[in-house]
Amino acid sequence: MTLISPDLLSQPHHDGSALYVSNLRPRLGDTVTLRVRVPHEADVSAVHVRLTPDAEPTFVDAAIELTTDEETWWKAEIICHNPVTNYRFILEGGTTLYQWLNGTGMHQRDVPDAADFRIVTFEAPPEWAADAVVYQVFPDRFAKAVERPVPAWAVAADWDDPVDLSKELTSRQLYGGDLDGVIEHLGHLQSLGVNVLYLTPFFPARSNHRYDASSFDRVDPVLGGDEALTRLIDAAHSIGIRVLGDFTTNHTGDSHEWFQKAQTDPECDERGFYFWEDGGYVSWLGVKSLPKLNYDSPVLRERVFDDPNGVVRKWISGSHGLDGWRVDVANMTGRHKAQDLNQELALQMREAMRDARPDSLLVGEHCHDFALDAMGDGWDGVMNYAGFTRPIWTWLRNKDFAPKFLGSPLMVPRLGGSSVMETMREFASHAPWRSIRHSFNLVGSHDTTRIRTLVGEDSRHVDAAAGLLFTMPGIPMMTYGDEIGMRGDYGEDGRRTMPWDAAQPNDERWDTRLLAVYRGLIAARNGSHSLRHGGLRWVHADDDALVFLRESAEQTALVHCARAAHGPIEISARHLRGVATAHTAYGRDLILSGGGVTLTADAPGTNIWTWPTP
Amino acid sequence: MTLISPDLLSQPHHDGSALYVSNLRPRLGDTVTLRVRVPHEADVSAVHVRLTPDAEPTFVDAAIELTTDEETWWKAEIICHNPVTNYRFILEGGTTLYQWLNGTGMHQRDVPDAADFRIVTFEAPPEWAADAVVYQVFPDRFAKAVERPVPAWAVAADWDDPVDLSKELTSRQLYGGDLDGVIEHLGHLQSLGVNVLYLTPFFPARSNHRYDASSFDRVDPVLGGDEALTRLIDAAHSIGIRVLGDFTTNHTGDSHEWFQKAQTDPECDERGFYFWEDGGYVSWLGVKSLPKLNYDSPVLRERVFDDPNGVVRKWISGSHGLDGWRVDVANMTGRHKAQDLNQELALQMREAMRDARPDSLLVGEHCHDFALDAMGDGWDGVMNYAGFTRPIWTWLRNKDFAPKFLGSPLMVPRLGGSSVMETMREFASHAPWRSIRHSFNLVGSHDTTRIRTLVGEDSRHVDAAAGLLFTMPGIPMMTYGDEIGMRGDYGEDGRRTMPWDAAQPNDERWDTRLLAVYRGLIAARNGSHSLRHGGLRWVHADDDALVFLRESAEQTALVHCARAAHGPIEISARHLRGVATAHTAYGRDLILSGGGVTLTADAPGTNIWTWPTP
Repeated sequence: MTLISPDLLSQPHHDGSALYVSNLRPRLGDTVTLRVRVPHEADVSAVHVRLTPDAEPTFVDAAIELTTDEETWWKAEIICHNPVTNYRFILEGGTTLYQWLNGTGMHQRDVPDAADFRIVTFEAPPEWAADAVVYQVFPDRFAKAVERPVPAWAVAADWDDPVDLSKELTSRQLYGGDLDGVIEHLGHLQSLGVNVLYLTPFFPARSNHRYDASSFDRVDPVLGGDEALTRLIDAAHSIGIRVLGDFTTNHTGDSHEWFQKAQTDPECDERGFYFWEDGGYVSWLGVKSLPKLNYDSPVLRERVFDDPNGVVRKWISGSHGLDGWRVDVANMTGRHKAQDLNQELALQMREAMRDARPDSLLVGEHCHDFALDAMGDGWDGVMNYAGFTRPIWTWLRNKDFAPKFLGSPLMVPRLGGSSVMETMREFASHAPWRSIRHSFNLVGSHDTTRIRTLVGEDSRHVDAAAGLLFTMPGIPMMTYGDEIGMRGDYGEDGRRTMPWDAAQPNDERWDTRLLAVYRGLIAARNGSHSLRHGGLRWVHADDDALVFLRESAEQTALVHCARAAHGPIEISARHLRGVATAHTAYGRDLILSGGGVTLTADAPGTNIWTWPTP
Repeated sequence: MTLISPDLLSQPHHDGSALYVSNLRPRLGDTVTLRVRVPHEADVSAVHVRLTPDAEPTFVDAAIELTTDEETWWKAEIICHNPVTNYRFILEGGTTLYQWLNGTGMHQRDVPDAADFRIVTFEAPPEWAADAVVYQVFPDRFAKAVERPVPAWAVAADWDDPVDLSKELTSRQLYGGDLDGVIEHLGHLQSLGVNVLYLTPFFPARSNHRYDASSFDRVDPVLGGDEALTRLIDAAHSIGIRVLGDFTTNHTGDSHEWFQKAQTDPECDERGFYFWEDGGYVSWLGVKSLPKLNYDSPVLRERVFDDPNGVVRKWISGSHGLDGWRVDVANMTGRHKAQDLNQELALQMREAMRDARPDSLLVGEHCHDFALDAMGDGWDGVMNYAGFTRPIWTWLRNKDFAPKFLGSPLMVPRLGGSSVMETMREFASHAPWRSIRHSFNLVGSHDTTRIRTLVGEDSRHVDAAAGLLFTMPGIPMMTYGDEIGMRGDYGEDGRRTMPWDAAQPNDERWDTRLLAVYRGLIAARNGSHSLRHGGLRWVHADDDALVFLRESAEQTALVHCARAAHGPIEISARHLRGVATAHTAYGRDLILSGGGVTLTADAPGTNIWTWPTP
């Protein structure tokens, strides 16, 4: 069956990218030009913008900027009156007088403001972040350079041992991966095209994951100590790779020096760093080894954020400093019962970081709807599990494998591509474009099922997942080992050691086909202006195919991801100006037919074509 | 054509009413039982609740409480861990493993949290508010008892003069209505069944609307002064009618004593009450006679909120005090550029009022999406233009009359009933049930087109509008004169004088048929527990008919509103337990057929039937 998909491209379109917004880094009071493209078939006679400065609906008329054979571009000038400017378009015409255009598309009836477009005037994230491709390393499992003594809490494992999934040992099993091991394999990252290394925690702790820090003042000696981190940062920087650390603002370990002091001396400052209730202390989800921090304490806030030798500033300062932080449990930080300091703390951290390292990046962990936490005053972005990972999982999970997601008791359902598109679009619409652009897109992490396991038998489903990962708006973040098909049913199970000895043809532990896919997709992204900076226009979504355009003033990219073989999808040439000059950036060559292009798939996978925007 | 509508009633249902939430006034830390009803045809095998305490997704299992022939009731206990508890249900079963149930219904794919159900632990609004029926009076135009001198700013008009709509005179034309005039006509309110009188501002000013107060310390002498207000409050209270005032927190008039002082003395406290920018002052939407208040000033906040003789407390204190405030321009209050004190100020006002008069009500003006401002810590509710007025207007406006809405340059479209239902449901879903319950529902106000004009030729369309007004969750607020068919193309035009001399048969200025409709509908509401306290389950929505159930443990109400004659809508008896004992609360008798009920309409109108919930 041939599917004709003119509908999506016949819709008026706007998004937060430079094609449609004249200034991506406006300041309060700036005038910004907004553009909206309106295909002629949409039958629009006039365009207005609705704003809500100081929370009062206000209307600005748009004027025609340009008319082509296919569409009219309207533009309007708005003032960024508040730090967050919500806006939507009103398109007059048609049988119902007008329709609204917001982040979820066109609406005849009134809709709430949640999906309005948003421009923010907060300090923008560093410029480099828009080009970032992030590689997540779990230090104990990535590579081991030096044999070191095993700490008392740990149970040593050989590199080839299977992960111990018993409740008693899963966090105590220590393979001894270290930071010098990472240095030795920076070439692997380079060969992938990665330009940011994100290390899960390196602070001393009593677990292999180190989210239970016993100090924030030093690097775990088991990893090589402070000097090893300096060596790693220097080595990475020397080849153009930035490094992000991982800091748990929400809690410490119960072995942390602060908590130890707090327990023994009721009068000390550190006592106020924690919540003391019902004869005990509050901890992360009731896990007693992870006492929760109480930011009502000004001393704690000073020590964490403002002290030049405190955790946030110290490690990102100077020429051997990290390039930013990923924050663990960012969503819960500063939140306990009637206390909600989250936004304030995110802002304080963001300001402290900007002061210590002006071009640093701050990304917060978040595992459900993040919109109200992601306006961009604090976290530059979040981990986009809700609006990226989960919809992709629903599309690509194996029919016979329904993974659970993080702490959820629920299996992930299996849905068609249109649900994926709608979910992605709706979650993205609730946050500013800039926040989505600086959020981590991911198809899995050290906390989840591995994508290779998720998809089941046919590894080409990973090609589709990775295709979305490296082509959609956001910062792609991949987990070490995904590129070679590393497996894992859930977080702990996926924290396997990187099998460097398998890096050869025909070793099933090292999928060279998949590695080539990752390299190819990352190369396509790194080589494409539009994949990194373009807008997002959906072209087609059905059960087995997702097709979209990424467009910048310089370049247009057409992306086609399939989860199965499917019949031809025809796209009219009039919606794809300049497509005749298309270059295959990844995958198969484009089939140009008389009236446009025809997309087909024989198998799961991804294709990317780019051409200069005429 | 016969329409069979099993779909909506075949859906699982939950809302914030007492049938489904065990405690409507919980405190922080309380355990609350949630219930969800699941028709057997929904094919649900298990139910969970998803919560996000401290912003972390958490799951609670539900258990079966009761199974009937038609449905299963599930229940779950949750803890109100934070002041606002978002929750949604997960219903396992069907082809996609599970569906979410939130305030907009059932969803297969992931949806953001905006439409999650919400319980809040803030201080609850006063109990009486749930039974309120509000009558809005614009004092200059309602009734005149005493002839008084005309102030210098005013142009006197005779009671029978038409409203002057010229830009120069529209706010200066003074008919001389006064508070003693209101006293004289309290019997009219009583005969309608109204139990709350809401007066637009009574402070001295230089306009007939008095939103440009020159003082908050006294009642305008033109209205009869302080003594007249006391007389009115006493008279109203003596017959069980409460009285609300109207205070503009956002601005004063430029003749206000504070502003006069601020302009002449740069060193005075009052100087800090306003925003001074670019050699001038900031005013409401640029209207220079309305200088905007700057709540950065602690002296202003003290004077407005905390001073026992300040505006907020003084007028609601004591046995002759008002019963609460409606706040004008609540949406913009405390908001200017980077300053956003709105929530803080609403909370401060709410606390000051509770201190001065524990059972007072606070309702804020809001004319677009109010959800984030209406969590219930500040305003008890808002004026629900966005989620009530506008959808009703789109349904009932005359085909040939497309009114503009408040400051919007846009005509209101004309849409079918399903759009009305979806819009109402979506706006309501973004705020706590309690906030919706304590918001003013209205089909117009002194600021808008009159409903009688909006509907066009056939006044029976007002029967449908008023039917929705008096039967939906929320506090119905009607504007003086709507009940006799008073007309007006827009706000100022609708501020006509009440033609008391026309209160007789066959005077076209006094529509006795419509008056009977209002009396009948208000009587139905006042006589029905479920119309005031029940949940809301939609039964049917098509172009010309809206049908819903209001259900409490005691009583069930079935409401049928039609905008035109329509063919039979059949509802199966199995969805309407106890319907055989239905009593006609308003309108035509119920047609019981073998398998249920059949709803038809020969003309626009409303029907209400009630019966004891079995």
